[in-house]
Amino acid sequence: MKAELDCLPCMLRRALQTARAAGADGSIQRQVVYSVAQILPELPLSSSPPELSQRVYRLVAQITGNHDPYLKEKQEANRIAMKLYPQIKRAVAEAQDPLLAACKFAIAGNILDLGSQSQYPHPETLLETALGLDLVINDYADFRTSAERAKLILYLADNAGEVVFDRVLIEQILQISEAEIYFMVREKPIINDATREDAQLVGLNKLAQIVTTGSDAPAFLPSECPPEVLKLYRSAELVISKGQGNFEALSEERKNIFFLLRAKCPVAARFLGVDIGAAILKKQE
Amino acid sequence: MKAELDCLPCMLRRALQTARAAGADGSIQRQVVYSVAQILPELPLSSSPPELSQRVYRLVAQITGNHDPYLKEKQEANRIAMKLYPQIKRAVAEAQDPLLAACKFAIAGNILDLGSQSQYPHPETLLETALGLDLVINDYADFRTSAERAKLILYLADNAGEVVFDRVLIEQILQISEAEIYFMVREKPIINDATREDAQLVGLNKLAQIVTTGSDAPAFLPSECPPEVLKLYRSAELVISKGQGNFEALSEERKNIFFLLRAKCPVAARFLGVDIGAAILKKQE
Repeated sequence: MKAELDCLPCMLRRALQTARAAGADGSIQRQVVYSVAQILPELPLSSSPPELSQRVYRLVAQITGNHDPYLKEKQEANRIAMKLYPQIKRAVAEAQDPLLAACKFAIAGNILDLGSQSQYPHPETLLETALGLDLVINDYADFRTSAERAKLILYLADNAGEVVFDRVLIEQILQISEAEIYFMVREKPIINDATREDAQLVGLNKLAQIVTTGSDAPAFLPSECPPEVLKLYRSAELVISKGQGNFEALSEERKNIFFLLRAKCPVAARFLGVDIGAAILKKQE
Repeated sequence: MKAELDCLPCMLRRALQTARAAGADGSIQRQVVYSVAQILPELPLSSSPPELSQRVYRLVAQITGNHDPYLKEKQEANRIAMKLYPQIKRAVAEAQDPLLAACKFAIAGNILDLGSQSQYPHPETLLETALGLDLVINDYADFRTSAERAKLILYLADNAGEVVFDRVLIEQILQISEAEIYFMVREKPIINDATREDAQLVGLNKLAQIVTTGSDAPAFLPSECPPEVLKLYRSAELVISKGQGNFEALSEERKNIFFLLRAKCPVAARFLGVDIGAAILKKQE
C-alpha cells in the first residue's frame, strides 16, 4: 500500500519519540524534528510507509548517534513475554482448535505492542484478550490448509516480545505440518522490531531457521533483499506476515501470503476497510 | 504556557485536517502539508501554542483560499446544542447547586467538542456526562465567591456549539451576581471557534455584551488585542476562560482568571499535572 499525506505528521511525531528513546537532549530533539520536517516534502507518496520511515529513522539515528534506541524496551518485552510463555502454551493446548488459538495469540501479541512494561497488561487480561479476539477479517480455514500442505514456510516477524507468541504459533504449525520454517527478522535494529538476538533469546532457533531481511527497513521489503533472501521468499509456498509494517510492504505482492496483524493507524485501517484496532487474519488476494 | 516540540507534528496533522475541511483537493492538501512542514523550524517554541497555530492556520487559509473551513460544522454544532438547551436548562435548575451544575455543563461542552454531528453524543449521554463530571482541579468555591462579588466579568468563549453551554452558565451567574458580563468571541473565523454570529445565534446578546478579540488567533492573546479590548480585559474583576487555547494563552497572566476546560493533549495535560481528558475548573495562581 502507498503512504498517504497523513503518514507525514505521524512520522514527524515518531521521529521525536525515537529521539527521546535514544536519550537525545532538547537541542538534539529539536534538530531531529527540524531535519525530519525538512525532508518530508521529499518523501515519495508512491512508496509504502515503511520505505518512507526507513529514511526517517536513518536520519534520526544519524543525528542522535544511537542506532538501537529501543534496546532496553525490547529486552524487557522479551523477558515479560517469556514469563507468560508457559501459560500461553497451556491455554493454546487446551483450546478447542489449538492452531486457531495460537493465531489469536500471535495477533494479540501484535495488538499489545510490548513497547514498555507500563503498557503491558496483566497476564490474565492478555489471555482473555487473545482467546476472545474477534477476527474482523478471518481467512483461518485457508490458512490452516496452506500450513498443512506447505513444505517451506517463511514467517516474517514484527516486534521483540511478540516473537514469543510467534513461537507458540510455530509450535502449533509444526503439529499439523511437515514444513521447514524460516523465521525472518530484521537485519539491523529498527524501532522495537525483532532481530536475530530476540528470536534466539526466545528459543525460535530450535524450531526454525533464523534468517534476516538484509536491510534496515522496518518491514520486509522484497526490493531491498539480497538475492539469497529473495530466493527464499520466492520459493516459500506460504508466507506468514506479522504486523502492519510487513502488511504495508507486501499488500500488493502476488504470493500466497497470510497477514496477521492489528490495524494500528487510520491509513491502514481505511485501506483494509476496518476500524482502528481490528484484528486481522487475511489471505493475500 | 510555552509550545513544546510535540506541538509541531500535531500542528502539521491539524493543517492537513483543516485543508481537507476547506475542501482542498489532493494537490492543494500536499502543498499545505509541505509548506507547513517547511515553516515548522521557524516557529518559536518560546511562544504559546495558539500563537504558533495562528501562523499555521494563516498559511493554510492562504493556500486553500478558504478562510472559514469549519463554517458548516459550526452551524451544525449550534443547531444541535440549541436543541439540547431546554433539557440542559431544566437539569441545571433542578440540580442541588445550579451554578456548579452549569459550570459542569460548560466544561462538558468543551469536552464534547461539537465539531460534527457524528461525534456528537446522544442528549442523555451528554446530560449524564456533564452532571457526573469529576473536576480533577476544582476551585469552584472560589469561583462562586468571585462571581458573586464581581461588577464586571469577561467571559472568553471557545467553540461554536459550546456557546449554548456558556449561555446556561451565564444565566446562572446572573442569578447570583449583579455583574455586567462581556462575552468575548474571536474576531475572525478560526477553526471551529465561536464568532459574533455564533454568540448571537444562541441568544447570548440578550445576556451579555458581545465583544471580539480583534485578532485571528485561536485564543485570546492580550498582546494582539486592540487598546479598547485590552482595557476591558484589564478592568474585568473576573475573567472566565473557556477551553485549552485560552488557557495556553493566559496561563502566565497575573489576573483573577478561572479556567474551565478539558485537557485535550499531552502537552497541556503534562503542564497541568493531570491526565488527558481531565475536566478542570482552575483559579489562576
